[in-house]
Amino acid sequence: MANPTAAMLVIGDEILSGRTRDANMHYLAGELAKRGVTLAEARIVSDNRQAIIDAVRALSAAYDTVFTSGGIGPTHDDITAEAVAAAFDLPIGVRDDARALLEAHYAATGAELNAARLRMARIPEGAVLIDNPISAAPGFSLGNVHVMAGVPAIFQAMVASVLPTIVGGAPLLSQSLRIDRGEGEIAGPLARLADAYPDLSIGSYPFQRDGAFGAQIVIRGADAARVEAAMAELVALFPESAA
Amino acid sequence: MANPTAAMLVIGDEILSGRTRDANMHYLAGELAKRGVTLAEARIVSDNRQAIIDAVRALSAAYDTVFTSGGIGPTHDDITAEAVAAAFDLPIGVRDDARALLEAHYAATGAELNAARLRMARIPEGAVLIDNPISAAPGFSLGNVHVMAGVPAIFQAMVASVLPTIVGGAPLLSQSLRIDRGEGEIAGPLARLADAYPDLSIGSYPFQRDGAFGAQIVIRGADAARVEAAMAELVALFPESAA
Repeated sequence: MANPTAAMLVIGDEILSGRTRDANMHYLAGELAKRGVTLAEARIVSDNRQAIIDAVRALSAAYDTVFTSGGIGPTHDDITAEAVAAAFDLPIGVRDDARALLEAHYAATGAELNAARLRMARIPEGAVLIDNPISAAPGFSLGNVHVMAGVPAIFQAMVASVLPTIVGGAPLLSQSLRIDRGEGEIAGPLARLADAYPDLSIGSYPFQRDGAFGAQIVIRGADAARVEAAMAELVALFPESAA
Repeated sequence: MANPTAAMLVIGDEILSGRTRDANMHYLAGELAKRGVTLAEARIVSDNRQAIIDAVRALSAAYDTVFTSGGIGPTHDDITAEAVAAAFDLPIGVRDDARALLEAHYAATGAELNAARLRMARIPEGAVLIDNPISAAPGFSLGNVHVMAGVPAIFQAMVASVLPTIVGGAPLLSQSLRIDRGEGEIAGPLARLADAYPDLSIGSYPFQRDGAFGAQIVIRGADAARVEAAMAELVALFPESAA
């Protein structure tokens, strides 16, 4: 597919330690699919400076757009902004525009703009701020890398700000069929179908339920008529699966 | 931390397309934490040969152990075994021991060992088989890389087979405290606490609920007395948070 590509970098120990399950990647994947951007890779790294630098450099070079989540708050384990600046060999410091956003927010809420909170105004040189309508502390875009918060509500608001700036592709259409047979029985005909429709992506996602095997077959492509035609052939091959 | 390190490689389009949410990584993270193995990185790549090869090589070199999930079934999009063989520059073909497992399984179930199913007996030279008590088709271990199925029940059974062969570390103990204040208020004292306990990992995981901000503070370490002492200091700093 010639659609633009994207990668996601999740920063923080929460998921790797088994404490929580990812929510942001799942949200971003859905939003990108709607706009015809292919989420081609995702990485999860811990709050480790070198790991963040390495991942940002690799993903930024390999894909059209990179989205990061996490590590831009005020606590000692929030090191994403510093690491992204280092990945691009750029200086970082408290920037006036970011400080002004925080000053206005904390003046309105009556809380103190202390040293920890001021760390959230540290922005790499040349970066463009990403609006945070919830708690003011901005994300930023640097080159093709968009650095966003990990708290899901803020992450989602930032994604909404960034997406209109991304070049999209033809939205990917998909149809799926559940087949209650083991993959081994359907793999032959399925491979021939995939060969006949090289412009489509035909995926088989096996499952096991109540001791029986089955698979969800998902046909994806940008051309509705082609997706329709391939699905019609699939249903003809496995007529008992049609709803 | 000097504990052994591991990485997880999830192979397949399901998560990247937004169709499903990860379950296997979350399961593995929990199992590794119990054994004192640090899950240091996770990557999710699509069913793309070169992407799998690159990720296997990078993770295998960087971490003590690598676990992969997905892409070892009988359908045309199952290319993990071929790609892992290529990552190690090893030949791959139908192996007698793997074929015997499949023959016995399909003889018992009355299904046919057709060409598609026989693909699941393709095992790289020198790999050690991983038992699949559910549907027979084996995973395999090659060097420090353990290649397992994506169907959660089978993935979990394979993890249970592999884990006893992995060198573990001191199990990581953790205690957590929920503080109903914004991170900006607690970041200063928290950073000083982290400085006083360099042998512990002190993480702050912010959340937003009903419009109010708070954070879960998680203190992790191998020494129960040290974790206990740091938690006592944390509670003294924020006494209103103790249950």
